[in-house]
Amino acid sequence: MESESPASSTANELTREKTHDDYNYENLEGWRKLRPLRPGWGMYHDIKRRLPYYWSDITDAFTYRTIASIVRMYFVNLLPALAYTLDMYRRTGEFFGVNEALFSSALAAMVFSILGAQPLTIVGITGLISLFNYTIYDIISRYDVTIYPQFMCWTAIWAAIFHWLAAIWNTCDYMRYVTDFSSQSFGMYVGIIYIIKGVEELVSEFSSHGPTDGYLSCTVAILYFATIYALERLGSSTIFKAGFRGLLADYAYPIGTIFWVGFVHIPGRLKAVNIGKVPITKAFHPTQPRNWLIDFWELDVKWIFVAVPFGFLTMLLFYYDHNVSSLTAQSRQFPLKKPGGFHWDFFLLGCTTFVAGIFGLPMPNGLVPQAPVHTDSLTVYETDMEIISTAEGEGAEIRRPVVKATAVVEQRVSHFFMGLALIGTMTGPLLIVLHTMPAAVFAGVFFIVGWGSIESNGIVEKAVFLLRENRFIQRDDPLLYIRRRKIVLYIGLQLFGVVACVAISQTIAAIGFPVLICALIPLRVWIMPRWYSQRELEVLDDLTANNKVVLASLGGAPELPEGAKPSDYGRERRYSEHKKGVPRQRTGSVTR
Amino acid sequence: MESESPASSTANELTREKTHDDYNYENLEGWRKLRPLRPGWGMYHDIKRRLPYYWSDITDAFTYRTIASIVRMYFVNLLPALAYTLDMYRRTGEFFGVNEALFSSALAAMVFSILGAQPLTIVGITGLISLFNYTIYDIISRYDVTIYPQFMCWTAIWAAIFHWLAAIWNTCDYMRYVTDFSSQSFGMYVGIIYIIKGVEELVSEFSSHGPTDGYLSCTVAILYFATIYALERLGSSTIFKAGFRGLLADYAYPIGTIFWVGFVHIPGRLKAVNIGKVPITKAFHPTQPRNWLIDFWELDVKWIFVAVPFGFLTMLLFYYDHNVSSLTAQSRQFPLKKPGGFHWDFFLLGCTTFVAGIFGLPMPNGLVPQAPVHTDSLTVYETDMEIISTAEGEGAEIRRPVVKATAVVEQRVSHFFMGLALIGTMTGPLLIVLHTMPAAVFAGVFFIVGWGSIESNGIVEKAVFLLRENRFIQRDDPLLYIRRRKIVLYIGLQLFGVVACVAISQTIAAIGFPVLICALIPLRVWIMPRWYSQRELEVLDDLTANNKVVLASLGGAPELPEGAKPSDYGRERRYSEHKKGVPRQRTGSVTR
Repeated sequence: MESESPASSTANELTREKTHDDYNYENLEGWRKLRPLRPGWGMYHDIKRRLPYYWSDITDAFTYRTIASIVRMYFVNLLPALAYTLDMYRRTGEFFGVNEALFSSALAAMVFSILGAQPLTIVGITGLISLFNYTIYDIISRYDVTIYPQFMCWTAIWAAIFHWLAAIWNTCDYMRYVTDFSSQSFGMYVGIIYIIKGVEELVSEFSSHGPTDGYLSCTVAILYFATIYALERLGSSTIFKAGFRGLLADYAYPIGTIFWVGFVHIPGRLKAVNIGKVPITKAFHPTQPRNWLIDFWELDVKWIFVAVPFGFLTMLLFYYDHNVSSLTAQSRQFPLKKPGGFHWDFFLLGCTTFVAGIFGLPMPNGLVPQAPVHTDSLTVYETDMEIISTAEGEGAEIRRPVVKATAVVEQRVSHFFMGLALIGTMTGPLLIVLHTMPAAVFAGVFFIVGWGSIESNGIVEKAVFLLRENRFIQRDDPLLYIRRRKIVLYIGLQLFGVVACVAISQTIAAIGFPVLICALIPLRVWIMPRWYSQRELEVLDDLTANNKVVLASLGGAPELPEGAKPSDYGRERRYSEHKKGVPRQRTGSVTR
Repeated sequence: MESESPASSTANELTREKTHDDYNYENLEGWRKLRPLRPGWGMYHDIKRRLPYYWSDITDAFTYRTIASIVRMYFVNLLPALAYTLDMYRRTGEFFGVNEALFSSALAAMVFSILGAQPLTIVGITGLISLFNYTIYDIISRYDVTIYPQFMCWTAIWAAIFHWLAAIWNTCDYMRYVTDFSSQSFGMYVGIIYIIKGVEELVSEFSSHGPTDGYLSCTVAILYFATIYALERLGSSTIFKAGFRGLLADYAYPIGTIFWVGFVHIPGRLKAVNIGKVPITKAFHPTQPRNWLIDFWELDVKWIFVAVPFGFLTMLLFYYDHNVSSLTAQSRQFPLKKPGGFHWDFFLLGCTTFVAGIFGLPMPNGLVPQAPVHTDSLTVYETDMEIISTAEGEGAEIRRPVVKATAVVEQRVSHFFMGLALIGTMTGPLLIVLHTMPAAVFAGVFFIVGWGSIESNGIVEKAVFLLRENRFIQRDDPLLYIRRRKIVLYIGLQLFGVVACVAISQTIAAIGFPVLICALIPLRVWIMPRWYSQRELEVLDDLTANNKVVLASLGGAPELPEGAKPSDYGRERRYSEHKKGVPRQRTGSVTR
């Protein structure tokens, strides 16, 4: 495993010669500074920048890591997608089912693995699109539930149009202002929504299958959570040889899932309960008796225009969600060599949104909690040993493991094969395998992914810092140089955003939450520099992605009003990485 | 809390003048060396040694720690006792019930708190006496189930006689040879039995109340386990102020128990299940319609003699179990000032065994997994901060918490009030409170106590050492100086003892397991020194109690054939304590 070659030499050469990217607005004057007036400029440069790496995206893939990545991502992508589909299935009058979910996931995987500029970004079905779909269902069913398929289709068509406009007008550039302030809030929000979904999933077992099924489901969900958690923790410990630990970390999901799916089928008391399983229908057919193509042309004109704001909000959700996925998949902890391409990918996302719309599929987009997991699964980690000499006498030392990410196998083959595996899952025999899976396992998936997003969140880390007994804080911790009430205010603002989003998600106004999340970016950029000094923000905050080759696609590094250079941020993070190294990315940990 | 006075000054003075105890066989010749030929010598010296401290045992008690200790011990004693009683109740034809268990626990607490030489040793109902009682029931029911009460009574009478003989003949002296080799095996065995009992408890919910009750019980048991575990872990972290952490550690059981008992009574789906509760009967009356006094004089003479070997095995069980409880309650990590008194206590245990026998109660004895918890609850811990200067440059340092046990509030008041609380629990109103407790909580108690005994066990620590990647082991770890196969053999022998005991416990020969456990002591003393060098045993093994004032009651420190001094043992333990300090005693951790 250690013998894997890092990203190819071609990539290295190309990067070295590109110290300055052509796509930037720095030395421009007058109208040229206005991004929307240079339509397609970002997309053009994305293609120009990324295309030379295409061949190496295939040749670089011939390592063991690619295989581990395919298996891990198949599970990490499929399980939450199915989990959300169960939720949507119940709450949209059984319109969206397993076949739609698989079709949508496979479509997205194919399009983005073959055509995407950022093949590391896994695209699929998220919890938020599920929230969107059933909230729209709740709204529409107040008027006329029969038009739901056509209305969703038009929502998608409008959303696709807004995507294309956003991509052409280079608006993705503003994503370079995304810092940990908003992406941690978003990660926390997503984590909480996941856990709420897990509880709802278990509650629905009670109401649809009775208490025996319900309590068995609770037991299985909790133990599934404990299994994956323990395997992933063991995988990042110092027990066992490095190779075996790596296997545990790579295959925690397959091991846990196969075991607990098998568990509920053990003959006797367990099998007798006949716990709720994934509902399936005929392979390759829509769940409802309909054609794949939605007859969107038959919708009343007034409803077509009602769909416009819904389409806009969908675009706004994807604008934040998809681009943050790409940012975290290419975030600072990964030593990436190949450039990003946000504009082009957002254009492609418009296309998949359109196709999903006219076929009546849930619209795929970047998977936030799973986003960094794909890159992680492709990262070659090395556990270095740091020897700290102590002043206790000759030979006295402390040995400490420091995990380093040495290289990333940057390629598009793992994404492609994961897509093939999803297509395979759509066939009859494998659908029957899916049908053996208890819904409880999906509740467990919600818990493990949601908790991963919360446990490693920077908000929690700062809160623990504040609660910790002062004398045990290492004296060189940069957070010590900031007044406590400033830290309290900082995480208070983040938590306010989280709580507002979680609260709105429980109402019929749920589809408005992207506005709230997006509002955190200007709050951070314009208002917070008035309350915090440059030095404080350098410690507390960090750019979510600060890799030059990634930021090139967004017109270069951002200039924030507090005046710090991008490389100055993240003192606290760098401090922690210096001590403990880069943590392996557990599913769900968006940013730390 | 920091202002508590350590053990009184009287104790200090007395200890200082007693550098050499009168009770020893060191300079004796001829028949005087033979312990059985000096009947009552040990008991006489126990009283003589301990009586001067009696008044200070009361006056020393006026600190907050005593209150925390009463609450914690009430829960830690009562919950497993009830758990075992549920087990016994089902498996002895409902002969032993809650009233018997409470009576027995209260009797033992009263006798040992007022008259005991070692009031730190909590005496009550253990899992092993439950195992004994139902195994004897299984044997007797093959012949004539109606004689079970009288037969148990005669078993107890014989056991009491053997206790008295053992105490008078000074046989407890041999307990000084108990090292971690056997006490860790015993701790592991007890832990495994506890977890098996927890599973059996849950299984019986399925068979007696159906699957809904069963799966709800599983859920509650797992979450109860997680709650206590998390609270205890938080209590020994560095989060929160030291005082608040202490409260969490002190009251983890009350908090967790009250919450989860309340949980199953939440109206709706939870209450509707009507989960299995503790079965109670009329206050102060035996569970069966009988008089408290067993009519033991009506048993056939042949059965009276059949009871002899059963009585002997009971004594053998208690010989090991009770004395190891006392050893661990006074073990090396506690800075004790007051002396022990093993002979006298074993004599008293004969008396309680006799009383328990003629009243048809389960026989109480020292509670192994809970034994060190009482002393722990009375220990004043201070978390010191160790600053390790590193060679990284000026001011570079690592801060590390090191927990130190600074003093123990050695008194008998907490034990006495815990006994009073048990008597209070026997009254009608509190019995009804008991009846609200679901059996699932007891399964959770089994899991947390059992797991505590396994997780911190020295066998597991050595196994983890062997599995850990070599380069991350600190170079000064003493285990590194021993060949790996020697360590494998050492824990292999321990595990062989554990597996043999667990296996025999599942059969009708279960009552024979004390023979196996006791056989580990001569194996360690006579055979293992042939396979291991003195230095190896010094690292691997340790005296379970090495405190001079405690060993005085056993005729002084043991002389082991490998020739090491008692203070030489436990290099590995002292190494670990030097690094991390003394861990707080979690319930169930016998020795580490």
